[in-house]
Amino acid sequence: MSDTSYPQTDLNKVKQTRVRATYDRDIVHAILDEAYVVQVGFVVEGRPQIIPMYGIRDGETMVFHGSRKSRFMRKLADGVALCLNVTHVDGLLFGRSAFHHSMNYRSVVIHSVGRLAREEEKARLAIAVTDRFAEGRYADVRGTAANEMKATDFLIVPIENVVAKVRTGDPVDDKDDLDLPHWAGEITVSRAFGVPRAAKGLKAGIEVPQNLIEKYGE
Amino acid sequence: MSDTSYPQTDLNKVKQTRVRATYDRDIVHAILDEAYVVQVGFVVEGRPQIIPMYGIRDGETMVFHGSRKSRFMRKLADGVALCLNVTHVDGLLFGRSAFHHSMNYRSVVIHSVGRLAREEEKARLAIAVTDRFAEGRYADVRGTAANEMKATDFLIVPIENVVAKVRTGDPVDDKDDLDLPHWAGEITVSRAFGVPRAAKGLKAGIEVPQNLIEKYGE
Repeated sequence: MSDTSYPQTDLNKVKQTRVRATYDRDIVHAILDEAYVVQVGFVVEGRPQIIPMYGIRDGETMVFHGSRKSRFMRKLADGVALCLNVTHVDGLLFGRSAFHHSMNYRSVVIHSVGRLAREEEKARLAIAVTDRFAEGRYADVRGTAANEMKATDFLIVPIENVVAKVRTGDPVDDKDDLDLPHWAGEITVSRAFGVPRAAKGLKAGIEVPQNLIEKYGE
Repeated sequence: MSDTSYPQTDLNKVKQTRVRATYDRDIVHAILDEAYVVQVGFVVEGRPQIIPMYGIRDGETMVFHGSRKSRFMRKLADGVALCLNVTHVDGLLFGRSAFHHSMNYRSVVIHSVGRLAREEEKARLAIAVTDRFAEGRYADVRGTAANEMKATDFLIVPIENVVAKVRTGDPVDDKDDLDLPHWAGEITVSRAFGVPRAAKGLKAGIEVPQNLIEKYGE
């Protein structure tokens, strides 16, 4: 298997709707890179728990951060089995029959175990999680102070046992239904960003930075 | 506690960021009603698993459906502890400091156990999951045939042990940072629907139905 694909393992082998599964690295990365929130699943006293968290891809890892005080990152890094999910809904599919209504989507599931970032890794990760909002953002603001860095834990989760599922295209109606007089097709779903809105009390004369305008529009 | 709020239990008591937590029924319902995909978490051989699924709110339950052949719904209904999550990202918050970048969001977490719908419940649920795409859609298309109904399992999950978290408003910067010359504010994130696109091979002369136009625009 080339390095353009992730390996198939016991944990990411797809049993259902195999036709939609892909292990392609570029596709996996693209889906992850579009997310702001990652669903993080773990087991607590035998029960499933899902926490939605801000997460970014950093090479072949996903990176999360949180308050050291809460000790939550520490708990998740303590050899705990994690399941990560990112899902984007791309379209609502209207079939000629109720049964063949469906959705276009892209999703990634990862089964992995995380570790806490070491102190010497944290400065770079603080930049990465900030620059995810806009390239160069970290350099434009007050950088992370020593006490803030100390108060923050970063959780690094390798991208492994990973599989993406992607559905695109038309609804698939039964042949016998194709001539029915019912409209069939797709209504796409996408993400829209608003016009940058200044925080209350922002000092007069501070313009919206160019990198935000370039990324999100005016 | 009035019936406008869900009860607090051992499973939904919030330990962190309590200030964002709410048990308000209307808020919980509104967040769930905006979802097309629900993250469904469960435990398999001690490991966490998350499957993103199309889900709708039906009164005080969430309803999922899937192929009977895969037996997946059956497995989830077999006394299995489920954790459901719906999360909407509403805004990216740019602080004057890297540390105070954040997000506005609305999320719901449910801890519950599901059951399979009985045969006599399925006809109504088939309509409900179709009409979620647009009110009256089921009546406009070929209804679910007996063999299709037989091939479909519905999973009904009561909304319990539920909590919502909601963050709105500005980034919260340190007082000492308020006069720094860095732009701070919000870029909202919302969902956009595209123009209805007819499926390939749609019979000539079939117009986009009025209920789709009303809900999603032209």
